[in-house]
Amino acid sequence: MSFSPLVDRLLESLRVLPGVGPKTAQRMALHLLEREREGGERLASVLAQALAEVGYCQRCRTLTEEELCGLCRSTRRDERLLCVVESPADMLAIEEAGGYSGQYFVLHGHLSPLDGIGPEDIGLDLLEARLAEDGVDEVILATNPTVEGEATAHYIATQLTGRQIRLSRLAYGVPMGGELEYVDGGTLSRAFNGRLPFSGE
Amino acid sequence: MSFSPLVDRLLESLRVLPGVGPKTAQRMALHLLEREREGGERLASVLAQALAEVGYCQRCRTLTEEELCGLCRSTRRDERLLCVVESPADMLAIEEAGGYSGQYFVLHGHLSPLDGIGPEDIGLDLLEARLAEDGVDEVILATNPTVEGEATAHYIATQLTGRQIRLSRLAYGVPMGGELEYVDGGTLSRAFNGRLPFSGE
Ligand SMILES: [Zn+2]
Ligand SMILES: [Zn+2]
Repeated sequence: MSFSPLVDRLLESLRVLPGVGPKTAQRMALHLLEREREGGERLASVLAQALAEVGYCQRCRTLTEEELCGLCRSTRRDERLLCVVESPADMLAIEEAGGYSGQYFVLHGHLSPLDGIGPEDIGLDLLEARLAEDGVDEVILATNPTVEGEATAHYIATQLTGRQIRLSRLAYGVPMGGELEYVDGGTLSRAFNGRLPFSGE
Repeated sequence: MSFSPLVDRLLESLRVLPGVGPKTAQRMALHLLEREREGGERLASVLAQALAEVGYCQRCRTLTEEELCGLCRSTRRDERLLCVVESPADMLAIEEAGGYSGQYFVLHGHLSPLDGIGPEDIGLDLLEARLAEDGVDEVILATNPTVEGEATAHYIATQLTGRQIRLSRLAYGVPMGGELEYVDGGTLSRAFNGRLPFSGE
């Protein structure tokens, strides 16, 4: 036995959410159908709209429904500093920590040859084009302090050798093996201020 | 700083899901937008359809997109037995435990005067109408073994005094203070077989 076909399809569809197993999907579906219909309708329509309209900023690749995100449109950010992050969540965490006034570039992941994720999949062609034309003095490689994040930072560093651009990496203080978006603001802010030249070793 | 307005609205909309706080909503939104667009579109459309089409079965009040649910349409269920549960999830748990061949009635909650939830909000008018016309011999009060569930069972028992209908409650074995839908099948099945006359005390 199970629920009705349509309720079963809803359970199945909810499983697409990260961390949602069968029991959680069931609790969510019943909650929406029994007690939160208005909120559920809003979720369905906002989700459909976001998927239809939200894409990548043409300049920094963060998620936005406009051609350029608010940060890239701002005239108050230092164009000489460019911080490369794996995810929009990392960008938000750095902004919330405060103290950084430059711009960003969002990879949406990291290099992962085994999964078929190469340089163009994380926008490195766009990054290279931007660095070729812009007046960027320093690129801060703020990929996650994981094996994949480090490898991606090294790849970018190699790609930039020969250019008159300073490379740096966040200072120690960021816990190794962790994910940037879960680091507290104070640690993140200190790591920014204490950033080191990127040695590539 | 935050995400773009539309992404922020998506985060906000996801908070309607039970147990989803700001961090989880952010992880869900980014997961859908960065890696699961197809699954996200399916979720949005199935959710909208379910909210538009799924209502209560006209006979047992479980969730269904048809007038009568599959179980009420079945000719293989014993019409003399009627099991009253708080939620469709409880109904599913009892069916999965096996051993019960009667019909159901779903309250979608319990009496809660402080929250303004009275007898008609949990369908007791419909239950009474059904018991007045049908050949039901026994009503099994399978509300949750919580204070509210017990109070609701007592209310229904009072409502039925004077009728030639046997009342029973699930046997002990169901842990007190717990929620029926999380009880394992074996315990639930034993509790069904060992059900006791409802004493109303
Ligand atoms: Zn941008
Ligand atoms: Zn039914």
